[in-house]
Amino acid sequence: MKTSLKIPTQSVDQAENLCALPFSSEISNKGTEQLRCYLSEKTNQQFPTLTDTKIDLSLLNGNIENFIGMSQVPTGIIGPLKVHGTAANGAYYVPLATSEGALVASYHRGARACLLAGGITSICLKEGVQRSPVFKFENLNDLSLFVSWFLAEKDCLQDIVKKTSRFAKLTDTKIQIEGNHLTISFEYFTADAAGQNMVTICTDAICRFIVSLCPVKPTHWFIEGNSSGDKKATANSFNNVRGKKVTAEIKLSASIVSEVLKTSAELMDRYWRSSTMGIIQSAAIGAHGHYANGLAALFLATGQDVACVAEAATGITRMELNKDGSLYASVTLPNLIIGTVGGGTNLPTQKECLEIMDCYGEGNSIKYAEIAAALVLAGELSIAAALSAGQFTQAHQKFGRKKTI
Amino acid sequence: MKTSLKIPTQSVDQAENLCALPFSSEISNKGTEQLRCYLSEKTNQQFPTLTDTKIDLSLLNGNIENFIGMSQVPTGIIGPLKVHGTAANGAYYVPLATSEGALVASYHRGARACLLAGGITSICLKEGVQRSPVFKFENLNDLSLFVSWFLAEKDCLQDIVKKTSRFAKLTDTKIQIEGNHLTISFEYFTADAAGQNMVTICTDAICRFIVSLCPVKPTHWFIEGNSSGDKKATANSFNNVRGKKVTAEIKLSASIVSEVLKTSAELMDRYWRSSTMGIIQSAAIGAHGHYANGLAALFLATGQDVACVAEAATGITRMELNKDGSLYASVTLPNLIIGTVGGGTNLPTQKECLEIMDCYGEGNSIKYAEIAAALVLAGELSIAAALSAGQFTQAHQKFGRKKTI
Amino acid sequence: MKTSLKIPTQSVDQAENLCALPFSSEISNKGTEQLRCYLSEKTNQQFPTLTDTKIDLSLLNGNIENFIGMSQVPTGIIGPLKVHGTAANGAYYVPLATSEGALVASYHRGARACLLAGGITSICLKEGVQRSPVFKFENLNDLSLFVSWFLAEKDCLQDIVKKTSRFAKLTDTKIQIEGNHLTISFEYFTADAAGQNMVTICTDAICRFIVSLCPVKPTHWFIEGNSSGDKKATANSFNNVRGKKVTAEIKLSASIVSEVLKTSAELMDRYWRSSTMGIIQSAAIGAHGHYANGLAALFLATGQDVACVAEAATGITRMELNKDGSLYASVTLPNLIIGTVGGGTNLPTQKECLEIMDCYGEGNSIKYAEIAAALVLAGELSIAAALSAGQFTQAHQKFGRKKTI
Amino acid sequence: MKTSLKIPTQSVDQAENLCALPFSSEISNKGTEQLRCYLSEKTNQQFPTLTDTKIDLSLLNGNIENFIGMSQVPTGIIGPLKVHGTAANGAYYVPLATSEGALVASYHRGARACLLAGGITSICLKEGVQRSPVFKFENLNDLSLFVSWFLAEKDCLQDIVKKTSRFAKLTDTKIQIEGNHLTISFEYFTADAAGQNMVTICTDAICRFIVSLCPVKPTHWFIEGNSSGDKKATANSFNNVRGKKVTAEIKLSASIVSEVLKTSAELMDRYWRSSTMGIIQSAAIGAHGHYANGLAALFLATGQDVACVAEAATGITRMELNKDGSLYASVTLPNLIIGTVGGGTNLPTQKECLEIMDCYGEGNSIKYAEIAAALVLAGELSIAAALSAGQFTQAHQKFGRKKTI
Repeated sequence: MKTSLKIPTQSVDQAENLCALPFSSEISNKGTEQLRCYLSEKTNQQFPTLTDTKIDLSLLNGNIENFIGMSQVPTGIIGPLKVHGTAANGAYYVPLATSEGALVASYHRGARACLLAGGITSICLKEGVQRSPVFKFENLNDLSLFVSWFLAEKDCLQDIVKKTSRFAKLTDTKIQIEGNHLTISFEYFTADAAGQNMVTICTDAICRFIVSLCPVKPTHWFIEGNSSGDKKATANSFNNVRGKKVTAEIKLSASIVSEVLKTSAELMDRYWRSSTMGIIQSAAIGAHGHYANGLAALFLATGQDVACVAEAATGITRMELNKDGSLYASVTLPNLIIGTVGGGTNLPTQKECLEIMDCYGEGNSIKYAEIAAALVLAGELSIAAALSAGQFTQAHQKFGRKKTI
Repeated sequence: MKTSLKIPTQSVDQAENLCALPFSSEISNKGTEQLRCYLSEKTNQQFPTLTDTKIDLSLLNGNIENFIGMSQVPTGIIGPLKVHGTAANGAYYVPLATSEGALVASYHRGARACLLAGGITSICLKEGVQRSPVFKFENLNDLSLFVSWFLAEKDCLQDIVKKTSRFAKLTDTKIQIEGNHLTISFEYFTADAAGQNMVTICTDAICRFIVSLCPVKPTHWFIEGNSSGDKKATANSFNNVRGKKVTAEIKLSASIVSEVLKTSAELMDRYWRSSTMGIIQSAAIGAHGHYANGLAALFLATGQDVACVAEAATGITRMELNKDGSLYASVTLPNLIIGTVGGGTNLPTQKECLEIMDCYGEGNSIKYAEIAAALVLAGELSIAAALSAGQFTQAHQKFGRKKTI
Repeated sequence: MKTSLKIPTQSVDQAENLCALPFSSEISNKGTEQLRCYLSEKTNQQFPTLTDTKIDLSLLNGNIENFIGMSQVPTGIIGPLKVHGTAANGAYYVPLATSEGALVASYHRGARACLLAGGITSICLKEGVQRSPVFKFENLNDLSLFVSWFLAEKDCLQDIVKKTSRFAKLTDTKIQIEGNHLTISFEYFTADAAGQNMVTICTDAICRFIVSLCPVKPTHWFIEGNSSGDKKATANSFNNVRGKKVTAEIKLSASIVSEVLKTSAELMDRYWRSSTMGIIQSAAIGAHGHYANGLAALFLATGQDVACVAEAATGITRMELNKDGSLYASVTLPNLIIGTVGGGTNLPTQKECLEIMDCYGEGNSIKYAEIAAALVLAGELSIAAALSAGQFTQAHQKFGRKKTI
Repeated sequence: MKTSLKIPTQSVDQAENLCALPFSSEISNKGTEQLRCYLSEKTNQQFPTLTDTKIDLSLLNGNIENFIGMSQVPTGIIGPLKVHGTAANGAYYVPLATSEGALVASYHRGARACLLAGGITSICLKEGVQRSPVFKFENLNDLSLFVSWFLAEKDCLQDIVKKTSRFAKLTDTKIQIEGNHLTISFEYFTADAAGQNMVTICTDAICRFIVSLCPVKPTHWFIEGNSSGDKKATANSFNNVRGKKVTAEIKLSASIVSEVLKTSAELMDRYWRSSTMGIIQSAAIGAHGHYANGLAALFLATGQDVACVAEAATGITRMELNKDGSLYASVTLPNLIIGTVGGGTNLPTQKECLEIMDCYGEGNSIKYAEIAAALVLAGELSIAAALSAGQFTQAHQKFGRKKTI
């Protein structure tokens, strides 16, 4: 550890000079050009690839500020992924954007095994996105008066939501009291949007209404008390729903396991048992293999909020040898924050990728969620097969980059 | 819930026909064209944006299979982010690739406040990447004989590592016994590579050596027993290190808080106290705000494994009012899996973005980690400021997409 | 580690001879005498203290098998603990059975500070005890048919409960689906009993009814799928309720903190902030100090199921310096599994201790829970005061046993 | 919820009158009599059972304050529990103090199955008790200077420990940095004492030495930063050791499972698989059934700190069907805080109970820990058998109290 860090102090004026990078929330050729010039001057570099894009900049408004160009990520395709769901029914090709060699190959192999087995059953069980304001009071007495008032007035909140958003519906409110802290978790149906902004705006309207009218006032209140699980894995979200909750299952015959996955159902069962003990030892939330790999690649290709991988990559994977020698496998993902409208879904390549999955636009979010869970199941099967049979290292040596070993 | 799901059965032949998507691990114009034609035929769509890229395909080998094109993500820039670290010392511009409106603006605001305050102290405290094979034995007696043998032979493992990798160094081995399950966690220094493949290959060599020579054999062993924390948030990784562990801090004067962040140090202190209770209620691992936002955007722009956001987005944020009216804030990120060589760092836009940060190539991973932690601190400050002062909703209304509300 | 464990094999006959300890579920003088003789013969010891009790053995039926005597635990008293609750209103003396020196003294000191401050507000917020059977199906299709049937028939479950128990009321049912696993969490009001047996028997009746009538059968079902939180700390119970959920608060003036607790409100605030970071680092469930100390001693004295300390000792403690120099402190205990009827509450000393608290028998469980939370708050204040001011070590040196250091 | 709580304010004088319960840390007939009179007067009750004990009060000094009498808990015996360990080797009778009907019967049944199978292998793997002071600094710069000094001076800490305690040995120090918070976890070997007071006193001496000599001073430091896992379940302790870490295993033949446990190995395997998913869903630490039941009863009978059940009742249970039709089962308990000297081990009935187990006094703590783990395994087997075969409800109906249903 370095033991003497010198932190130069400086006048605000000096600092302001350093801070001259012009902030720009509009994506204009002029503004972007200005930023690029500024950066080139500061770093003595040119950025030909970032800047040489064919993207129509007008499409980016609302998605970015201080725009300097488009990052490009290699994108592969897997499938068909055959899905039997409540909304997804058919054989889907799934685009995955990643720079990790072997990832696409592995998911593709899993999808192939599942296709041969007749397809994956994938069911969206629940929907809901939360915003969880916290109200702090002088004491429990004030808090309890406020709660009483709130419970009496609760019925009119749906009207506020209706006036605030065309899509949102308030579906649940949960109260948590911790000393003089009151957290109200408002849960919404957000149609086909991922919905984080929608629920913020609706909850803001609700809170302003409550706080202005209730005769007992909190000393402080904040629109999000950091208990909604936004952008992080939490046991609370894992136990409930955040976004969509989907479960998917498949039964693979012994011959599919041996021919496509190059292992045996018994070995996969044994591997998964040991693996479950491993994940319990690691004190994770839930018990899965590598949901994040498939989800990050899918989210990236299809204009989802990639940061939501932090919360979406939780759940339970199960693999069990059946008496008839076949393998039962399932995944359950309670926190799939996804949307097929809004966010990055209108961006050019993202829209195309959603269209490949037949998931662009309204009416497609449940379908998308069911395909996503099926994708995740394919990936869990493929990696568990590789790990059970000792092929994991080889697969990465075959497909990955060798230079850096 | 749909109550009657019909799962069509099919012959393997029928399924094989469906499964005709040709697998391709080479990025050739021909292979990719073939895939695109196949997809267009299956989906009746064209993909002009995905396919019209200027990327030199030869650069993509080892990063993708079944390549169909490049996904493009809007990229903005923030900074300068002034950092005082052990390797990062200076003012850095940080590229962020995201489709979430307001994200870049928010991190930029945080960076500006920190710049005016003289910069962020950011120190990489530890390094290490684990691979954790599990060995299963007939019983504890066999297991204990194996462990005794292993402990006696442990010293020669470093040689195996040296022969296997130019970069990896074995830095620690931890033994966990759970009944007849033995997990050995091998921890490595992986130089400037993120290192997951490197540690897999080294550990594979070690395991094959041990298992072949030890007179007592496990009934099964697997190269990863799912306890290393790979691609998921775990309390075990949070308590130790995975990748780089970095802590960063800043002291913001009352005037900077009020002028740049538009709130007060007292309000931020109060918000963060309540927020800490919220995150404890949600039963997360660690206690932070939204690390995933900055990390996902940074990882994406700079060729990191974006799936690692699932593990990297854990840590502890703290904000405290000082007696002199200033604000102390810190972030601690124990699981920053990042690299400046290998993985996606050589991809065209990714390389450019690393160069903007002066972090491309060997000798830069600690610098990168210290900048990343500083970025995260800037983002925590900005969001906490917005939430403390009730600006959060407005910021999203100003910069975000309005159509979907 | 010992590397050669020899496990003698033996015939079942040999083993049966060893196994001759006569099992006895009746507490008769004769049966107990027989056991004691057997033990004395096997161990060559006499047990004068265990056996010389004045307890009327007939009182123990249903509480113990293979009875050999009464374990005796030193019991002290603290108070009065002044409580303002929904059921507890007054000044209570609280018996604590423990062998840990300084424990009673510390809780007594906390109670005294709270008494001088006017008393603790302690409110029971929720009640509920769960039993969570799991049903496993051939596949998701069967599971969904079963769930549909269950949801349609749900209304008649209350009748089954009524026929099974005089006290239990079914208050909630929650469904969790994970692949082909269906968990139904049945939550009950159990009146003044702790209720674990009551909810088992009611749920057993419900399950037998469902499984016999539903046309779709599970392949297996088990009365408890280990998700109810019985006898262990879980984030799920922490986020909901198990037993009683109680929150308690107090405001201590600066002078009380300094005169009674021998520290300052500012130091306690600082200590608790640092302590909260410590507990987050330790990856606990919730964030408290030492709930288990007070709860174990109280449970033991008053005939509760002491094993429930494992689940009850979770929650959130908060201590904050107010602007006026006073200290706000609160505790929240969501998993207080307690009863004032049944279990060990009728045992002789336990009944007396409940009577000291005015909590023996029907109608007293909420009062008991509110006193318990107030006790816990007193204990948190006293230990945090000691730790904040550096008195912790001295307190244990003064009251604890010195011989073993 | 009650909405208007009236909190009477009072003068300190009035309160002091209420607070007249005389504090007494000596166990004298006179002091105790005085307390009893005071209590009788306040509550208008007599306490014949609590007070009519034959215990020699002089034995209680250091274990209790404000003594009013002895709580008495019914105690049963199970066994012989046959154990093959590193210190425990033989057939042990184990006393369990509890008021929960069916508990003793269930553990006895499990012990019998294990005896017939040749006995339980139970191995203590690690020992260590931690105290984790936290030091807070002006900033990271000061903290790093302090750490550098500490690392250079670390070697002389063992001397301080030697001067402070006859038994303690410092075995490890771990450093955790979180912003300007430095936590040093000191881990000790505490011989046959549970050791919490011992490690407090040694760490206090170390801290005073460090803080007085180091040229850089912390702004605050506290002897326990609440990260040691004291009196609570934490993932950190679960992943390491706290007290003793023990693992125990058994292989039960199909006939023993069917004849003694009245179920089949296959059903137990199936039950435990489903149960493991249940406990993962509940977001517990580790994955077990009901460790707390056996541990609380054993701790209570044998003079352990019963509050430590909160931390000891974590671990991993595993049950697996072997190919030959037998059942493999294991338990792993990483946090067994126990001692055979000090604490409550010298109390009259507790000493007798320790003697029954041949575990009283020095040299017996590892033996005790191995017996405890074996006991826990017997209990896990018995409850899982009951749950797998649908006997659980009946067992409680047979042995438990019927009145309260």
